[in-house]
Amino acid sequence: MDNTQHQNTAATAATLLARLRPCLDAGVAALAQACSAQGKLDNALLDARQVACFEIAWASADLLAAETVIGGLSAQTSDADARLALVFAADAIAAVLARLEVLYLELNIDLAPLHALNIDPAWADLRRASTGAGALEATGRAVADANAEVGHVEFSEGLAMAQDAFRRFAADVVAPQAEAIHRHDMTVPETLLAPLREMGVFGLSIPERFGGSAPDDRDDTLMMVTVTEALSEASLAAAGSLITRPEILSRALLTGGTEAQKQHWLPKIAAGSPLCAIAITEPDYGSDVAALALKGTRVEGGWRLNGAKTWCTFAGKAGLLMVVTRTDPDRSAGYKGLSILLVEKPSTDEHAFDYRPEGGGRLSGKAIPTIGYRGMHSFDLSFEDFFVPDFNVIGEEGGLGKGFYFTMAGMMGGRMQTAARACGVMRAALRASLQYSRDRKVFGQPLLEYPLTLAKLARMAARFSACRQLAFAIARVLDEGGGRMEASLVKLLACRSAEMVTREALQLHGGMGYAEETPVSRYFVDARVLSIFEGAEETLALKVVARSLLEAALKPASRPALSAGT
Amino acid sequence: MDNTQHQNTAATAATLLARLRPCLDAGVAALAQACSAQGKLDNALLDARQVACFEIAWASADLLAAETVIGGLSAQTSDADARLALVFAADAIAAVLARLEVLYLELNIDLAPLHALNIDPAWADLRRASTGAGALEATGRAVADANAEVGHVEFSEGLAMAQDAFRRFAADVVAPQAEAIHRHDMTVPETLLAPLREMGVFGLSIPERFGGSAPDDRDDTLMMVTVTEALSEASLAAAGSLITRPEILSRALLTGGTEAQKQHWLPKIAAGSPLCAIAITEPDYGSDVAALALKGTRVEGGWRLNGAKTWCTFAGKAGLLMVVTRTDPDRSAGYKGLSILLVEKPSTDEHAFDYRPEGGGRLSGKAIPTIGYRGMHSFDLSFEDFFVPDFNVIGEEGGLGKGFYFTMAGMMGGRMQTAARACGVMRAALRASLQYSRDRKVFGQPLLEYPLTLAKLARMAARFSACRQLAFAIARVLDEGGGRMEASLVKLLACRSAEMVTREALQLHGGMGYAEETPVSRYFVDARVLSIFEGAEETLALKVVARSLLEAALKPASRPALSAGT
Repeated sequence: MDNTQHQNTAATAATLLARLRPCLDAGVAALAQACSAQGKLDNALLDARQVACFEIAWASADLLAAETVIGGLSAQTSDADARLALVFAADAIAAVLARLEVLYLELNIDLAPLHALNIDPAWADLRRASTGAGALEATGRAVADANAEVGHVEFSEGLAMAQDAFRRFAADVVAPQAEAIHRHDMTVPETLLAPLREMGVFGLSIPERFGGSAPDDRDDTLMMVTVTEALSEASLAAAGSLITRPEILSRALLTGGTEAQKQHWLPKIAAGSPLCAIAITEPDYGSDVAALALKGTRVEGGWRLNGAKTWCTFAGKAGLLMVVTRTDPDRSAGYKGLSILLVEKPSTDEHAFDYRPEGGGRLSGKAIPTIGYRGMHSFDLSFEDFFVPDFNVIGEEGGLGKGFYFTMAGMMGGRMQTAARACGVMRAALRASLQYSRDRKVFGQPLLEYPLTLAKLARMAARFSACRQLAFAIARVLDEGGGRMEASLVKLLACRSAEMVTREALQLHGGMGYAEETPVSRYFVDARVLSIFEGAEETLALKVVARSLLEAALKPASRPALSAGT
Repeated sequence: MDNTQHQNTAATAATLLARLRPCLDAGVAALAQACSAQGKLDNALLDARQVACFEIAWASADLLAAETVIGGLSAQTSDADARLALVFAADAIAAVLARLEVLYLELNIDLAPLHALNIDPAWADLRRASTGAGALEATGRAVADANAEVGHVEFSEGLAMAQDAFRRFAADVVAPQAEAIHRHDMTVPETLLAPLREMGVFGLSIPERFGGSAPDDRDDTLMMVTVTEALSEASLAAAGSLITRPEILSRALLTGGTEAQKQHWLPKIAAGSPLCAIAITEPDYGSDVAALALKGTRVEGGWRLNGAKTWCTFAGKAGLLMVVTRTDPDRSAGYKGLSILLVEKPSTDEHAFDYRPEGGGRLSGKAIPTIGYRGMHSFDLSFEDFFVPDFNVIGEEGGLGKGFYFTMAGMMGGRMQTAARACGVMRAALRASLQYSRDRKVFGQPLLEYPLTLAKLARMAARFSACRQLAFAIARVLDEGGGRMEASLVKLLACRSAEMVTREALQLHGGMGYAEETPVSRYFVDARVLSIFEGAEETLALKVVARSLLEAALKPASRPALSAGT
């Protein structure tokens, strides 16, 4: 960023963001008061304030992302990235101001500080310089000049090599098969799985001593995020999501498994044999983990499972299912009555299976046809007196009742991954849109030459770039042991952004965008799953992000790991 | 609306809207100056200001819709509809203020009037009373209490009977077949077409003297809109869109056909035999009608067609294609070189056809697979020396070169229809969401009991309701001979709204919303076509809505047909 104009504008943006942060904090503090009794958050009060909590979660996401991209500007920042940071910051400030006005009205907080910001000439200056029509046009051109290589993140050599290798693999091997897998609703074929096993993707979260490629002494979220994003660019379902399941299961095993269990399972998972699936959701319980009902009954040498699971992705192809099971017959134990049982089954490419092991019992499954995210298939599962030996209870006797905690250990990684998946889809949509805008002539000139096209590309790129930079910043924090709330926050923001970016990508393609033969049509339907799974948008916003913010506000000493300017 | 509180809030909304209208007008006037030279709009200047033109088109749509719903409130308005009008108005004012700020900054207009509105206590009052958390919750409950029967429009007896009959037919006959047609990508079956022929849907725009059901002396857009909305609620593609093609073709015939042509074709079209398709778009030209290239060469007794068309919906099933053809060999004639030729062909349910009539030549077609809007299928068409007799040129010798005008005559109706189609899809999504929210328990109580659910339902219903009321208001104006720009404006607003409403509907359904067996997944993919076809969003916003507004601003005497308070 060697342009003085950019530097001045960035300074203005930083000043405005620094003024906006205390406005957000004041809103959070007031909301925390409104939702608490005797200094503690109260569930009924929180439920009554859902709308305000939802607003504050989104405002917080926008603001943190804006602080991150503006705080990340340096002399090394490219022209395109500097412009994109300014576009995102200006749009984010407008969005946060609007959300805070709603919140302040709700809580009877004086709107004066927001109004003062709104009429500040610096705010007008920032908008003119960053999201004015001329600025958007120039930003669109900068994105085109950079061939959509935007959203730069500083990488170690190892990460850079991994990114290059997986981007190449994604483009050369995954992309040519992605359309057929989607349109024929195929199961991810061995032509993709075999090389991915060789590249070690299933062991990215597993320490080296257990056969994976993660360091023995710490998490390597950055690597996981890097690889996931690269693969997701070619296909969300046929490549980019393959790592999520081994990630969740191996983290649960690392957190709660006995040494013998780790030795037994982790090397196999790392080798991608068996492949894994995670069975949590039940037909009557989506986000409400504490109410799960699939029942395990203790028998000689193990447990018999009875009940149903749903939305168990990859359950057909998987040979190993992580099944969150109610092992405590007292249902009032809630989430403390849950354990994780590992179910072994034959792998199949079929959309339905009916497995009756010799020891008796039955496990049947049926894929749920969906509008996108095809390739892995999400299954309805039915367990009837299905036997699981004691060795397959994570933590064995000591793990009983701890299934919820062990699951949560993997969930955070799953959310970070989902943010990375969203970034991959956005990058693909952005690149396809740029290419199409160059090739397509409308009213006598390339679509790319029109100011509205350039403005759309600028905003799409700004969203992608901000989400990507935030995702990597939070991945770093996670590797340092923090960032629990932020993992949900970036999941929220990136997934909703992917919906917006793919919507605009389809729109730029006109009728062709709606045709199945055009990849953006797949990006669009695939992106729609992102705000639903791995923690539905509403659940994460209310139960994780808003709740964490309000809790922190009640304990003023603690601050979120990534706050202003990091 | 017998509640004093509502009446006071509505008065506040009306006052704020009345203050906002001159702010919009000032922006339009300044933009008109910036885009004109010597008092006339300049295409290059308009292109350079695309971003501002886009903003003003949307601001204008939001404001007109808000004025319409607030202006339409009366003592007879139901509690739910009164609340929904207020929700929409508050959200629209916020959106218009934000867009005008962008525009004012761009054009260096003093922001003071906007800032004054923004800090006005009346504006805070309106928001508290209409989109505050408590108000949204109450509105959501009112929508639920009304069983989502919202967006009331005053109907004549004839319209009310038609609406009842077609809603019943849609629910009883169309809805049960809609999923299969979508998922198996079937062609609309005779089990739907035969009763629809009997009910006269193909003759809704055709005067009685030509075998249709429209009055002989005027258009009956209201009836067309009513029936289209009712059918679209069950299926956009398998029912709601069947009327668009005969609408466009019959209006072109009524505008430009000879008496003999009208006598010959209109009764057949009205009877739904043959079915029709419209071939305008070409592979290299989407919205740019003046550049169309499909060539007609004059031969003994008629014309030979050579070239390609694309996105010709229903071309397989249709027996009659309206083909916009370049009959003037001088391409510089632009849109003045176009004529409409009617091509007769056999009807087929297949996804591809190859027709070689005895007179020589060939017409082949192939359906383009799409993510939604399935059932009619949009075809790529290829003409090779295909013969069309002189009698099939609309207007015969006198119609040569007038194809563009004849097409436009039908396009306006097509846009109104598309707004109605969007309303039907929104209504379906809203009703499904309400039902699911009642049935689904989350964290121990029905989803419907949560404030965030109620707020979402309120905003979905507010959008649907406002679009519906605006669509019918504009249909009335069309029947009185005006409303050309407004037909595009409501098409814009309703189609984008349908994207938003179906997105939220899917989100409320969680994972089930993403499953093909759940109707909202179809509503979501179907809705995505709406902003692309029948005039892409960008084209309508820039070339019709913004252009008309700016033209009107340069001629201050003329005002749009539907402005403040009608």
